Amino acid sequence: MLAVSVLVVALVSQTAARYTADWTSLDARPLPPWYDEAKVGIFVHWGVFSVPGFGSEWFWWHWQGQQPPDQKCVSYMSKNYPPGFSYPEFAPQFQAQFFNPEDWADIFKASGAKYVVLTAKHHEGFTNWESPNSWNWNSVDTGPHRDLVGDLGEAVRNRSLHYGLYNSLYEWFHPLYLIDKKNGFKTQEFVLHKLLPELYNMVVRYRPEVIWSDGDWEAPDTYWNSTQFLAWLYNDSPVKDTIVTNDRWGSGCACKHGGYYNCEDKYTPGQLPKHKWEKCTSVDTLSWGYRRNMKMSELMNLPTIIEDLVRTVALGGNYLLNVGPTPDGMIPTVFEERLRGVGAWLEINGEAIYASEPWRVQYENTTVPVWYTFKGTAVYAIMTTKPPKLTLQLLGPKTSATTKVTLLGNPHSLPWSPVYPNAGLTVLLPELPYSPGQAWTLRLDGIK
Amino acid sequence: MLAVSVLVVALVSQTAARYTADWTSLDARPLPPWYDEAKVGIFVHWGVFSVPGFGSEWFWWHWQGQQPPDQKCVSYMSKNYPPGFSYPEFAPQFQAQFFNPEDWADIFKASGAKYVVLTAKHHEGFTNWESPNSWNWNSVDTGPHRDLVGDLGEAVRNRSLHYGLYNSLYEWFHPLYLIDKKNGFKTQEFVLHKLLPELYNMVVRYRPEVIWSDGDWEAPDTYWNSTQFLAWLYNDSPVKDTIVTNDRWGSGCACKHGGYYNCEDKYTPGQLPKHKWEKCTSVDTLSWGYRRNMKMSELMNLPTIIEDLVRTVALGGNYLLNVGPTPDGMIPTVFEERLRGVGAWLEINGEAIYASEPWRVQYENTTVPVWYTFKGTAVYAIMTTKPPKLTLQLLGPKTSATTKVTLLGNPHSLPWSPVYPNAGLTVLLPELPYSPGQAWTLRLDGIK
Amino acid sequence: MLAVSVLVVALVSQTAARYTADWTSLDARPLPPWYDEAKVGIFVHWGVFSVPGFGSEWFWWHWQGQQPPDQKCVSYMSKNYPPGFSYPEFAPQFQAQFFNPEDWADIFKASGAKYVVLTAKHHEGFTNWESPNSWNWNSVDTGPHRDLVGDLGEAVRNRSLHYGLYNSLYEWFHPLYLIDKKNGFKTQEFVLHKLLPELYNMVVRYRPEVIWSDGDWEAPDTYWNSTQFLAWLYNDSPVKDTIVTNDRWGSGCACKHGGYYNCEDKYTPGQLPKHKWEKCTSVDTLSWGYRRNMKMSELMNLPTIIEDLVRTVALGGNYLLNVGPTPDGMIPTVFEERLRGVGAWLEINGEAIYASEPWRVQYENTTVPVWYTFKGTAVYAIMTTKPPKLTLQLLGPKTSATTKVTLLGNPHSLPWSPVYPNAGLTVLLPELPYSPGQAWTLRLDGIK
Amino acid sequence: MLAVSVLVVALVSQTAARYTADWTSLDARPLPPWYDEAKVGIFVHWGVFSVPGFGSEWFWWHWQGQQPPDQKCVSYMSKNYPPGFSYPEFAPQFQAQFFNPEDWADIFKASGAKYVVLTAKHHEGFTNWESPNSWNWNSVDTGPHRDLVGDLGEAVRNRSLHYGLYNSLYEWFHPLYLIDKKNGFKTQEFVLHKLLPELYNMVVRYRPEVIWSDGDWEAPDTYWNSTQFLAWLYNDSPVKDTIVTNDRWGSGCACKHGGYYNCEDKYTPGQLPKHKWEKCTSVDTLSWGYRRNMKMSELMNLPTIIEDLVRTVALGGNYLLNVGPTPDGMIPTVFEERLRGVGAWLEINGEAIYASEPWRVQYENTTVPVWYTFKGTAVYAIMTTKPPKLTLQLLGPKTSATTKVTLLGNPHSLPWSPVYPNAGLTVLLPELPYSPGQAWTLRLDGIK
Repeated sequence: MLAVSVLVVALVSQTAARYTADWTSLDARPLPPWYDEAKVGIFVHWGVFSVPGFGSEWFWWHWQGQQPPDQKCVSYMSKNYPPGFSYPEFAPQFQAQFFNPEDWADIFKASGAKYVVLTAKHHEGFTNWESPNSWNWNSVDTGPHRDLVGDLGEAVRNRSLHYGLYNSLYEWFHPLYLIDKKNGFKTQEFVLHKLLPELYNMVVRYRPEVIWSDGDWEAPDTYWNSTQFLAWLYNDSPVKDTIVTNDRWGSGCACKHGGYYNCEDKYTPGQLPKHKWEKCTSVDTLSWGYRRNMKMSELMNLPTIIEDLVRTVALGGNYLLNVGPTPDGMIPTVFEERLRGVGAWLEINGEAIYASEPWRVQYENTTVPVWYTFKGTAVYAIMTTKPPKLTLQLLGPKTSATTKVTLLGNPHSLPWSPVYPNAGLTVLLPELPYSPGQAWTLRLDGIK
Repeated sequence: MLAVSVLVVALVSQTAARYTADWTSLDARPLPPWYDEAKVGIFVHWGVFSVPGFGSEWFWWHWQGQQPPDQKCVSYMSKNYPPGFSYPEFAPQFQAQFFNPEDWADIFKASGAKYVVLTAKHHEGFTNWESPNSWNWNSVDTGPHRDLVGDLGEAVRNRSLHYGLYNSLYEWFHPLYLIDKKNGFKTQEFVLHKLLPELYNMVVRYRPEVIWSDGDWEAPDTYWNSTQFLAWLYNDSPVKDTIVTNDRWGSGCACKHGGYYNCEDKYTPGQLPKHKWEKCTSVDTLSWGYRRNMKMSELMNLPTIIEDLVRTVALGGNYLLNVGPTPDGMIPTVFEERLRGVGAWLEINGEAIYASEPWRVQYENTTVPVWYTFKGTAVYAIMTTKPPKLTLQLLGPKTSATTKVTLLGNPHSLPWSPVYPNAGLTVLLPELPYSPGQAWTLRLDGIK
Repeated sequence: MLAVSVLVVALVSQTAARYTADWTSLDARPLPPWYDEAKVGIFVHWGVFSVPGFGSEWFWWHWQGQQPPDQKCVSYMSKNYPPGFSYPEFAPQFQAQFFNPEDWADIFKASGAKYVVLTAKHHEGFTNWESPNSWNWNSVDTGPHRDLVGDLGEAVRNRSLHYGLYNSLYEWFHPLYLIDKKNGFKTQEFVLHKLLPELYNMVVRYRPEVIWSDGDWEAPDTYWNSTQFLAWLYNDSPVKDTIVTNDRWGSGCACKHGGYYNCEDKYTPGQLPKHKWEKCTSVDTLSWGYRRNMKMSELMNLPTIIEDLVRTVALGGNYLLNVGPTPDGMIPTVFEERLRGVGAWLEINGEAIYASEPWRVQYENTTVPVWYTFKGTAVYAIMTTKPPKLTLQLLGPKTSATTKVTLLGNPHSLPWSPVYPNAGLTVLLPELPYSPGQAWTLRLDGIK
Repeated sequence: MLAVSVLVVALVSQTAARYTADWTSLDARPLPPWYDEAKVGIFVHWGVFSVPGFGSEWFWWHWQGQQPPDQKCVSYMSKNYPPGFSYPEFAPQFQAQFFNPEDWADIFKASGAKYVVLTAKHHEGFTNWESPNSWNWNSVDTGPHRDLVGDLGEAVRNRSLHYGLYNSLYEWFHPLYLIDKKNGFKTQEFVLHKLLPELYNMVVRYRPEVIWSDGDWEAPDTYWNSTQFLAWLYNDSPVKDTIVTNDRWGSGCACKHGGYYNCEDKYTPGQLPKHKWEKCTSVDTLSWGYRRNMKMSELMNLPTIIEDLVRTVALGGNYLLNVGPTPDGMIPTVFEERLRGVGAWLEINGEAIYASEPWRVQYENTTVPVWYTFKGTAVYAIMTTKPPKLTLQLLGPKTSATTKVTLLGNPHSLPWSPVYPNAGLTVLLPELPYSPGQAWTLRLDGIK
């Protein structure tokens, strides 16, 4: 009898796994486990906006969309281009002549990231693949004359990295979108004739494992037909078992509905959230897209990145670190350096990151900031500043007779002594090895 | 009783005037009279194809569409452009910086034409107006940054010329069209999501008096939804009373259905057709669009044009003479010269052309070719070659006691004598004035 | 003895033929006879100025040289180009991709011209050949990447046309010239290091038969080293026997020194000059260089050109008619039409033009204007308007018993009668054949 | 008596200071002291070559000069540019729109360098200032439309940095140079009409303190008139007292004549040279000019740079570190990072570098490499690797009773003990502070 009822339950549960097009059902879908284990991803913003490379990837909007326009953008254009030059005329200069997806994927692999998310289409509407719904405004018809989404995807997957696609729901200047907007989003010209056909096509064609949705905020999810799309994605799409998505599916959805939560750009919670989340941030603090005139002081340095990554993971998040390639198709060397620096740090400290979980205590401010993660039987205490003294006192862990402390990258056990009986320990540190990331991990075994 | 029956007739006729979406009904619509009276129109081919200005307005197709491609086009591109340069990248060079619609309209007016037909959209799909269905592939978003269709229309109408728009049904490379084509035209992705929304919008926005339909031949009218569109156009559109259209509404329609007949490009019938028709032809015999490397020997000279116009009108046709402006927005001077030459000839001889009808006899080959037209009580005999002698014998007209002969442009009656009693006459010609068009008109009154 | 003295004379005369570098000597040089016999030449203005094609070939000066600048040019640039765009940046767009020197030479030959003068270098300083003194500012290093001077020369000479080169002495913006100018032309940096090395090189390399000098007026001939150059040209250059030059060799030289006289551009004398002269003029009345926005009303029509040519030749001048090719390398069709029209007229009337001389009477204003030329035993009377009557009275010629009158192009003698005994005649004209040039020539034999 | 002898001395010394145009005299000139004290300079390669940014600043030569050409360059051009595209046509894209000389000078200042050398003209011949001898091939007439040499100079000098100019004697493709070369350098067309006028003008206009001469190797100094130029430079130029120059003044001069010696690019001597020298090297190991496709692995990292700098100074050289700005006018961020890294290291360790002298012993290979410098009473021992142990044994220094050891950046004296009596010492190191440059300096006082 038992066997039979198990089978019945299995069948029922399979049937139950069909999602309906409402948030209650969709939000109940468990996140495919690869995502939480991955922890670190690379975000890539690349598009026609990389050509002006001025201000940010929002250049078009700042120049001609918002009211009043950004005078820096207006002035840049009037000083450097003929009157009447329009944004679409940048496209032929998006040439990607040095774009070697193998080189990119090597760098991403070397960064220690486990997934890569490329802007398949940003708010400008230019698709980095040959969308039949974006004729002459895509990377095959003009500019690179190349399937950027497909080419990068192949290289990335060949290195066992997961591949995701960013997709903007809205397009600032699409005339059908503007019609719907003018109609208070009571019409769906844009959604039915542009957005959805393109999105379905993209999923079927490229089988992304992440859909990083964006540009949702001006209209409710009912306008975007988001729940219907997600129901298809989870029930019937070719990626139904592996797909992960975020929470930008309509105004009011962020931090509330969808897959994992991004909440706001660069959002970091103050304490451990209950829902899986992801922090997306950018090496260039002022832009996601390439800026031709970026300066060193505007970039995150490696220690800042490592600290941010560690904090994010300790708080249960994934860390999606962005770089903006040049219109020529290169990852600027300074970004390559940062990514390889992250990878070098993860080479030693990745044990504390990948597939880890938040620990009972996430943070402790001792002589230096310490972030905790947890995996299997080990607790990891990550110092994001070099301790001023040779000893480090940790109050969070409860020690035991079997407690053992090691520094990742160092084979020897470290001497330690309890602070209180079963509560806290003082570790005698070795001389800390040179770490450009300036963060070191203590592994604590036999700890509660 | 009278009042009542008038009302009934009015109601009936109004009811009767609603067309159904089938050819029997649509073909029965009488052509609005302005069109036949106009006789002479100017055709303007202007678009992105004007930028390469090489081969013809079919450049894109010859270069990259047909198999095998035209080696002249392939070679031109490989010699003058970087590898990978794509056709849409010509668009930014379509600048129209010298485009003054007032100047154009002055020239068209001076040509004696009564209507002007501009390519609103040719087979390349680029719209010369801001079509919401052709984002970033239209003259406002890129290139001229201007509403060419609207601007020319206003200037043309200010001179009391009728304004028509050429529209290509198919677009060689539109991805939705290619999908439908691949599906044997059993799907209508292109028609429903691109063609028809755009076409309705164009009619409502610009209220053309001619829709010069083209590019229909690859699919049946049922694919294009032509009869539904025409029924709307004739019943409910803002131009339902004045609109004239042609016969290119699906494969098999040419010379058979629609408004007037174009049949083939440059088609000239051998004898008087039963249905109103129009001959479209181009000053540049090799192209409708501007060619940067045109030579004089490839152009029609004025006498050839006048002969062609006269023959066409004598055979009941309208004459639509094409010029291709430069991407800078100028009508090449040699075309201006031809158009003004036509106008100078019509200034004197237009009486025999405008609002004329074919006569009982259309043509007579006496010592020189003579074409006849007819209006009111006058018959016009147009000589398209200078007669070798001072007398001209015409056998077609039947003279009477009141027969009177004059040369248009000359106030004096000409002496004449009958050839046979009441059949034929010999006219004593004056010295014929200098006519760059090399055609002269005799007006015959009191003739049968 | 005889043999010896002949030898001596030969030596002496050879010695005597050496010119010294002063005007007295140089001005005494007889003009090589080919030039006066040629009568008709084609002038070609082609250079970087053809790219903006706006205003005239003086665009650079009008835009950035003169004070105040021409607001039309300033406005054109600010509307169509980015701020800071400089004139040299037009050069890459001077591509000449359709330039076929054979086609040009065919047109020039068909025009009936006997010589062709190309701008080897205009005031902008850009050389249409690979001048070692104009590095990166010549047609081989940039733009056409082609030896325009050489290529056209070969095609022109293959058709037995003489080939001349226009050379501007000054260059508006050459920094060495500006230094000399600032120094009141007391230094010769420009002349010694740029102008003369280039000019000698040009003559040796291309062996022109005309040097059409220009741009001399800001400085005296002593600054330009003109007399030294001409002495070399006449004594020792490879073209010493055939070279013809004009009168623009320094301020004050025009109409006074040099070879033939141009005096001013488009200069036409009121009566027969004593010195051989040439009228240069342009089909486009507003420019010598190509203008992209030229209109028909700004061009000379054929009758005007023919009248001008006839008047010039009757007054002893040569007629140098200018056309401005496009930057693509085409002669605009309307210019081709004019040139072929001139050729068609000369085909019939050239007998009265080539190798003719001014007659005792040059002009007579009878019912229509009549211009006379003279060759061998014939006097030619050229009517530049169609006579209103069938008879034409000429008072200039003195008839005799053997006087015979024919119309060129017509085999028959025309009846005539004397007006007074031996003075004047009345000719009975035939019907004048159609002449697009609207000028007809009577040949008078047996006349004094 | 005193007054008289002073006067005599003054006269004598003034007389003695006049150099004659021969190497014996010129080589005897003492180097102005600022140069040796400066030790560290920044080299900047910027020009039209920055536009293709491919291969290196030798792109033009590799593409079109050498035989056979570099296939990578040929292929790059044929894949990305239209046939016939010429190198000068890159110039309009050299726009420098983000060039802010204040920002550059801030970075250079922050690098700790004491002088900056900019390419005023590289082998391509393009001058970064408005040279009257390089019309339309300079940064004012085209491209940046700006006096780059002047603008950077002002900013650099405002920060009390010395300013030098790189000048290439030869120009690969200058037609006058090619003539001289063809003539076996027996003519001096190029030198007399291009090179020297320009060079004198440059010195007078910008008053550089370094002339970094290059491109001398194809011809002897007699061709270049080098000794005459240097005699003028040392005797009569406005910079005669401060100017420093190098040794590239003709084939055979390198490492033998001139001011300081560069010998070869990136030359490093094996032992202490007798003559002042300078090592020039580049952060990008493959190029001096900007490369758009550079990768991190091709760049020197900071420790490598610091090691190189230290070795160079210990061996008596100056260190000239090169960066290649973008055509947009930015110093690539990765270069900025390197320069600021050098500056951060010099902030602490500069005491051992600036105005130092080579010591009796230059190098000692103890557990780590140690380089010595010397200034006043202090000897500096610079470790370019982190010592593996807490003690460091140095055998070079001879200790005394007053010997004192400190670590730069650390206020405390370090314990030490002699190895032998008065020979060698073992220093007990503190924990070495984090140094991205990975080099630390011990200051030894009371040492022989």
